[in-house]
Amino acid sequence: MTAAGVVEVIGVPGLPEVRPGDDVGELIAAHARLQDEDIVVVAQKIVSKAEGRIRSLKVVEPGESALRYAERLQADPRVIQVILDETVRVVRDERVLIVETRQGYVCANAGVDHSNVPGADSVTLLPEDSDASASALRRRLEELTGRRLGLIVADTFGRAWRMGITNVALGVAGLPALVDYRGRPDDFGQELTATLVAVADEVACAAELVMGKTDRLPVAVVRGYRPPAPPGSGRDLIRPPELDLFR
Amino acid sequence: MTAAGVVEVIGVPGLPEVRPGDDVGELIAAHARLQDEDIVVVAQKIVSKAEGRIRSLKVVEPGESALRYAERLQADPRVIQVILDETVRVVRDERVLIVETRQGYVCANAGVDHSNVPGADSVTLLPEDSDASASALRRRLEELTGRRLGLIVADTFGRAWRMGITNVALGVAGLPALVDYRGRPDDFGQELTATLVAVADEVACAAELVMGKTDRLPVAVVRGYRPPAPPGSGRDLIRPPELDLFR
Repeated sequence: MTAAGVVEVIGVPGLPEVRPGDDVGELIAAHARLQDEDIVVVAQKIVSKAEGRIRSLKVVEPGESALRYAERLQADPRVIQVILDETVRVVRDERVLIVETRQGYVCANAGVDHSNVPGADSVTLLPEDSDASASALRRRLEELTGRRLGLIVADTFGRAWRMGITNVALGVAGLPALVDYRGRPDDFGQELTATLVAVADEVACAAELVMGKTDRLPVAVVRGYRPPAPPGSGRDLIRPPELDLFR
Repeated sequence: MTAAGVVEVIGVPGLPEVRPGDDVGELIAAHARLQDEDIVVVAQKIVSKAEGRIRSLKVVEPGESALRYAERLQADPRVIQVILDETVRVVRDERVLIVETRQGYVCANAGVDHSNVPGADSVTLLPEDSDASASALRRRLEELTGRRLGLIVADTFGRAWRMGITNVALGVAGLPALVDYRGRPDDFGQELTATLVAVADEVACAAELVMGKTDRLPVAVVRGYRPPAPPGSGRDLIRPPELDLFR
């Protein structure tokens, strides 16, 4: 960023409902006027739908563990079973299931969600590999538009200690996830500490301001942000269990 | 937000080094061209400096507990003592002190920081009451500019489970901290769940993209965001201990 830099966050309206097999890149390219260096932030929900990461609850048989959690949490045992199928470790089971997913995220309900899914009996799952989803979608969009782009697949997660959910970057392609300011001198020449900044999460948060939760605006463009580091991946943002004091 | 809405994030360059007693409102008003409904995001560091929330380590006498932590964490026992003075509960003490501060934040080192402070022997503390700081600064800026404004006092905090720090809203005035989408129907008419969004934290994150850590850009303006809820406070973002599973 130059000192006088301006970052713009632009909602992309008009996208139709996404269905399994849809070409999300084509849908976005048809509705957004992209420029070089734009970062396209795409809601996980439409990526999951296009990838067919939808499960019908009608065919789910809850096991014993799911039935037990469901009773305690007053939840649909079939939904709990789907959550457990995505889970490698239950981190907390009071009030809500906070789990570590197969992808390594720690989040509520393994990201399984039944909002904005057509039909009361279906839920969406997080993408199998959000970085792969982000890379593929970026490649497709670059091919269709001829622009050099960054791409983030984002979802809203809760936090320990703070109320409310915020957008986070699950998949990242073409931009850094983290910028490491450690070791750079600060304004007084001292070495900075604790300044590994999760810029992809911050870009995702900026995008959420125009995406909303009910406006059917699953795509936003962040323009004018030039992160001062080489590209990374969403995996960079996952704290390894051995560095995590809270699971 | 309208569907076609654009949010702009604008850095405010040119601010001088802030000193105790400085009128931060006057400094910002002299360097930013504010419009009605702008949200001004101000780094905690300059608010703390203006408020004199600086401690000289020369006069700090570390107690027994500080000496013990300092040895284990290989840290300056005087800095540890300052951290403990701001702390009501030590949440974790491996590798870094993660504490609950007197204000209720759970964060590393109680927000005590020695970067960007002139003189190697001083540290800054978080404001006593960031909501009061935000309200006072908002009032002053509105008085000087004649504009209706929102104001956030922000700092970068780490997170459980995810790498890197992101900006968070400590003090909030003139805008909501949380927007509650619970109970609003989603695109398919089902009730949304888990959709209490921490919009003030997201605005703070957006601002961080232009603030950087070393660019001496402690102020940014977020323009064009119209949060769909009445004003709140930074306190709304602090998860009460009884609702927190991770302390």
